Amino acid sequence: MKIRLFTPGPTPVPEKVMTRMADPILHHRTKEFSNIFTEVSEILKELFQTKEDVIILTSSGTGAMEAAVANHLNPGDEVLTIEGGKFGERWGELCEAYGVKAVRKAVPWGRAFTPDEMRETLEKKSDYKAVFLTHSETSTGAAIDLRKISEVIHAKSDALIIVDGITSIGAMPLKMDAWGLDVVITGSQKGLMIPPGLAFIALSRRALKAMEACRQPRYYFDLRKAVKSLQSRTTPFTPAVTLITGLLEALRMIQTEGLENVWKRHAILADSTRKAVRALGLELLADSPSNALTAVKIPELLLSAGIDGRMKAKGVIVAGGQSKLKGKIFRISHLGYYDIQDMFAAIGTLEEVLQEENWNFEPGTGVKILQTNYLRLIRK
Amino acid sequence: MKIRLFTPGPTPVPEKVMTRMADPILHHRTKEFSNIFTEVSEILKELFQTKEDVIILTSSGTGAMEAAVANHLNPGDEVLTIEGGKFGERWGELCEAYGVKAVRKAVPWGRAFTPDEMRETLEKKSDYKAVFLTHSETSTGAAIDLRKISEVIHAKSDALIIVDGITSIGAMPLKMDAWGLDVVITGSQKGLMIPPGLAFIALSRRALKAMEACRQPRYYFDLRKAVKSLQSRTTPFTPAVTLITGLLEALRMIQTEGLENVWKRHAILADSTRKAVRALGLELLADSPSNALTAVKIPELLLSAGIDGRMKAKGVIVAGGQSKLKGKIFRISHLGYYDIQDMFAAIGTLEEVLQEENWNFEPGTGVKILQTNYLRLIRK
Repeated sequence: MKIRLFTPGPTPVPEKVMTRMADPILHHRTKEFSNIFTEVSEILKELFQTKEDVIILTSSGTGAMEAAVANHLNPGDEVLTIEGGKFGERWGELCEAYGVKAVRKAVPWGRAFTPDEMRETLEKKSDYKAVFLTHSETSTGAAIDLRKISEVIHAKSDALIIVDGITSIGAMPLKMDAWGLDVVITGSQKGLMIPPGLAFIALSRRALKAMEACRQPRYYFDLRKAVKSLQSRTTPFTPAVTLITGLLEALRMIQTEGLENVWKRHAILADSTRKAVRALGLELLADSPSNALTAVKIPELLLSAGIDGRMKAKGVIVAGGQSKLKGKIFRISHLGYYDIQDMFAAIGTLEEVLQEENWNFEPGTGVKILQTNYLRLIRK
Repeated sequence: MKIRLFTPGPTPVPEKVMTRMADPILHHRTKEFSNIFTEVSEILKELFQTKEDVIILTSSGTGAMEAAVANHLNPGDEVLTIEGGKFGERWGELCEAYGVKAVRKAVPWGRAFTPDEMRETLEKKSDYKAVFLTHSETSTGAAIDLRKISEVIHAKSDALIIVDGITSIGAMPLKMDAWGLDVVITGSQKGLMIPPGLAFIALSRRALKAMEACRQPRYYFDLRKAVKSLQSRTTPFTPAVTLITGLLEALRMIQTEGLENVWKRHAILADSTRKAVRALGLELLADSPSNALTAVKIPELLLSAGIDGRMKAKGVIVAGGQSKLKGKIFRISHLGYYDIQDMFAAIGTLEEVLQEENWNFEPGTGVKILQTNYLRLIRK
């Protein structure tokens, strides 16, 4: 059986990236690897839309989230975390682990915190050291209006703006410098189209300053070491060499397609997927959906049908719900290496399972809408 | 030009491990990956010679070293670190980063701290919370007698025994349970024959207890999370899936060869390399050499010859000296996926460079000794 990944990380890795990583291994202190590292670093800046360096860590995305907390906030500092899902909550947990006082603003899962709500929140109290945001919440498929929220924060507060861009970078516009973001992180197995094992973090000048004043214990994730090593185009500890080599191939693909076109492709696939799902009589979880993934509510009647398990059994690996959403939603990823032809597999298989369950819908509607909506949008 | 790696990490990755990692990527929360993870976990126990679980981290080896400090020692705790090279010093640095009071015992680089010296040291003071050791010091090529030193520590102190086995595991006998070691760590790009990106840490019952009493801030390297996840055969954060898949292939190779045979192969290659180097009129740095790598002193007359750079230019990538040994030694690795035929390339190329420098030796002596010593030892 052909297996197709529709999970929001790991996402499918392009064939030429996989084979590139099977090349004989390079030593990390050689000119050859240094050239790869330099080119990777340059393209990463473009991806983050920043002039600052992007630090590469060998860890999962959570490692970069921890680095964001452990390098910029001292015990006792007050911060605001916006928590509308499992990964938003992780910001709060990380702050607590490091003795940082987090005002943890809970948002119903699936709802995107709005710029107006941010304004109201900061009008009550604004002297936070940092505000922690999740651009695209992977557990709910909701995306915030990061540009406008950052504008509000800058107008009301001196807080550092720290952003989890794990499933947004490479999928949706995120403009670090233009939007005044201070710390932006992402992971490798998402829009960057390579296997898990690398995380990325970019720091503004303000963030670099805060880093120097930070007294938290840290070593492997001590970004001062990483910043220093970057001057000689290297990393303080042995990096995941093969993943970085693969990353170069993946980043070159993004460059060739053009970042704006990559964002547009994600927007079109996401919109078409959402319309197809709705055409099947299903509802989306997110009120403001991310272009990285589509979270679908499982209707009451189908709660015991095990939709995502049945799709998996047919080779289409979608993601189930996490934490309190377990069994209540399933998530279809269109993040990274996807085109419209891939999406037929996801929607077609979903239709197959729905038919087996005698769900009331016109067979073929999903793939039909997928096709027509896609063609309409790319011809615009 | 054919490139051959003789560096003590990354070490060469077997072809079938590389191609296995190029298979379509698996999602980490699937049965298929869970089976791989379970088999990997079982073989790792054998490699560490322990009945305890071996935790897999996505990081470099330093991440596991940090986890060892951050999960077992509180600020103000007094520990003893034995520092005979760059990696021994890292234990001291890590302790300092976490506010742990380290009595940092410096050993001349290249000398192996002896069981007698450990006895003397503990006779002066023995109430340390932990003793930090480096089994095989990668920066100098020296190996301690870990079995005897552990015996001495157990006789004199209740300290936890925390061991950097980064370049010893898979190269030399290390028996965690039998020798009473409490925390043992290693990395992936060493004796385990896979690319960098994974680290491993095993904990004794005593270490598990100390972990529960530890108050250090930690999250990504919080081993309590990892221990909990192991119960359901998984990891708390997305692991480096492709590296773990490759690891299974590599561990199966070790199992097929047999761990005792792997140790013996390393001992024979190391002994033959050392004898070949000496036959060329060169001296070893280490008084008690590791079987993972051979560190060679650069003679006064050849200090400006750039021996390691010239070998690299011929496709034989050896490692130079680190920190205070920069320019003074070069290091030939025989750690992991090596056989005697590989070692001819290292010694042959070294002879070539020495001849170009008019170094006084009988041409062909190195490879001759390599061959004769090897055949003598395997026929024993």
